[in-house]
This record gives sequence, structure tokens and C-alpha cells, in this order.
Amino acid sequence: LMMGANGRPQVSENMIHPMISHGVKIMSMGFLIDEDAPVIWRGPMVMKAIQQFARNVDWGELDYMFVDLPPGTGDAQISLTQTLPLDGALIVTTPQAAAYTVARRGAGLFEKMEVDILGVAENMSYLELANGEKQYIFGQGGGQKVADALKCELFGQIPLDSCLREGGDRGIPQVIADSKGNIANTFRLIASKIIEQMGN
Amino acid sequence: LMMGANGRPQVSENMIHPMISHGVKIMSMGFLIDEDAPVIWRGPMVMKAIQQFARNVDWGELDYMFVDLPPGTGDAQISLTQTLPLDGALIVTTPQAAAYTVARRGAGLFEKMEVDILGVAENMSYLELANGEKQYIFGQGGGQKVADALKCELFGQIPLDSCLREGGDRGIPQVIADSKGNIANTFRLIASKIIEQMGN
Repeated sequence: LMMGANGRPQVSENMIHPMISHGVKIMSMGFLIDEDAPVIWRGPMVMKAIQQFARNVDWGELDYMFVDLPPGTGDAQISLTQTLPLDGALIVTTPQAAAYTVARRGAGLFEKMEVDILGVAENMSYLELANGEKQYIFGQGGGQKVADALKCELFGQIPLDSCLREGGDRGIPQVIADSKGNIANTFRLIASKIIEQMGN
Repeated sequence: LMMGANGRPQVSENMIHPMISHGVKIMSMGFLIDEDAPVIWRGPMVMKAIQQFARNVDWGELDYMFVDLPPGTGDAQISLTQTLPLDGALIVTTPQAAAYTVARRGAGLFEKMEVDILGVAENMSYLELANGEKQYIFGQGGGQKVADALKCELFGQIPLDSCLREGGDRGIPQVIADSKGNIANTFRLIASKIIEQMGN
């Protein structure tokens, strides 16, 4: 949805061809099931799906592969670390105290599985009002606190923003919808820091 | 955290005594593990924890039992429906299009497991500015759309609100911190609609 890709991927010779949108190859459970049907899958089936996405999708040569995970430290996270060699994990959190513990625990799983923590991105950091004033609805400093606890860098802060949300719902990422805006710059900054950290 | 309960629950004769805060008995994995340690649990262990919370916690006589679930349709949701007889499910969503599909799928799991959908609560519905103007950061109508699709009622809309968030982080629910305020009234309205629906 957020990448503007939909429909069913082509399958040939037991390989799934990823969808392509904005120049990015994409694979998601959402392409394979009905929009309204729940994916009622216990852990072993989650593991199988992850393995299939890793092995039976015709990814070809990639610059980078991103895997967007649900929150938590369950089967999806464990199976992924056991299926693919990961170069690192980006921890995403909100500034809120309640999110801090969840982010720390999520990072703890990757540490235990010996996956490097690349850095932290803070989401929903603030809302900018029409007069330029920033409202910190979810508090301040949570992302930095997580980064400090994990001894890594806070890569950037993404604000709460109507345009960002609308672009997501319409499948047009902010780096394309408003490529010169502040939010696009922050996304690019975070991307460059991920690349830099992966080179270390 | 959000209920202001912490520490370790007492255990006697193989029964765990729930923590009590604001007159509510509470049990959570968070009481049993270190704050920073990830709960790296595959599905069968999630099932075991849910069974233990249902059978080995000294709940006594209860008016209502609420189980707060993570998003999704995985082991926690499946195991719960197979462990406890549920009177119904309250679906919580944000107004955002991206959240709609997730909420519909979650409800689909309960329908498949023959658990009644009681209704829908919309969270992060809007932000009220100092001048009274409402900002619909996550869009409008998502909760109603989910309710319509599930043929049930939208019970209420909880705004994005700094005080609500702070109360959550400090462990003081809004119905106690500001018991006569609009947000507390909305929570009470949702509660009364749940009770009403459970009577039907």
C-alpha cells in the first residue's frame, strides 16, 4: 500500500517475480492473500513464508534488501535471523516512554542473534504547526535514549505530518512526492547513515 | 507501565498473584522478565504463557477480563481464542487507510474463530490545537469504515493528546488523571457500549 504496489505477482518455474514500484522490487504477504482475509498463521508457517520469500523470489542482483518487520520479538524476527545473513538492524521507535522498552527488547533480540544494530530512527517525533511551532505529542528524547542504551547513533527524526501520511496511503513516498522537502531530506540522511554504518 | 504497576508478582502454591493497580488486577509478561531482555519466544511458548495466565493466575471473581493483544493475526490471537471462552472482541484502529486493512484482518481472525465483534474504537483520531481547531493528521473516517465493514458500531474516537500520552507513561489513566474531561468521557462511553453490547 505505502509503496503503491498492488495486484498479484507473476509466478514461473516455481519462482515468484517481485512487484516493482518506484524502482524498488517488493514482496509482501499482502500480494498473495485477499485484502480482507486474515493470515492466520502459527509460527512454523511464518517461518516457511520467510524462507520462501528469501529463496523462491526472483530477486536478481540487489543493491540492498530491506525487511520490514512487525513490532515484537516473536517468530518473524527469530526466523528471519536464522534464514538470511543480516548486515544489520535499524531500530525504529517513537519518542514515547512506552515505546522505549519495546524498542530496547527488539534490539536485544538482534544482539542475542549477533546481528549488528546500525542505529535508531525516531518516528512521530513532533508535529509542526502552521506557525512553525513544534508540538511534542509523544514527548521528547525517546529515540536518543534508545540510541544511548544501544551505544549507537540516532540517525534522524521523522515528524508526524499529514502529507507524509497521505503519501503513504496513496503509495507515493515522501522522497518522491516532495523530494526537496525537509522530510525527504531526513529520509535521505537516515539512508546515508545506514550505508555509512554498513561500510564500517 | 500504562497502568502504573511494576515489581514482581507473588507466587504461592503454584499460583501467581496478579498485581493490583487502580483497583484492577493485572498480569503481564513484563512483570516476569527483565525490562531490557527480549522475550524471544516462538509460537508454542506464547501459547504456554497464555495458558498459564489463564489457569495459574489467582484471578478470583472478576467483573470483566480484558486481554490486550498485539496487532496481527498470529500465535497470540489464535492461542487465546483456543484457551479462553471470549465474549467478544473490541477492534482498535487509527483513521489511516494503512491501518484499515490490518484492523479488518484482525477482525477476520475473530470471526473465523466465531468470536463476536463487539464494536470499533478509533485511536489517534485527531489533534485539538490550542484554538480549538481539530487537525486530522491520520485522515478521517477510518474507524467508521472498519465498523461499517464489520457491520458493528464505532463506539468512540480517542484523540491524539499530550496529557493522555503523559498519563500513560506515568501510569495514571486519563479517567483518573482528569476524570471529568472529554477524553475520560469518551473512554467511559466506549466502556458502557462494550457492556451494552455484551448484554445483547
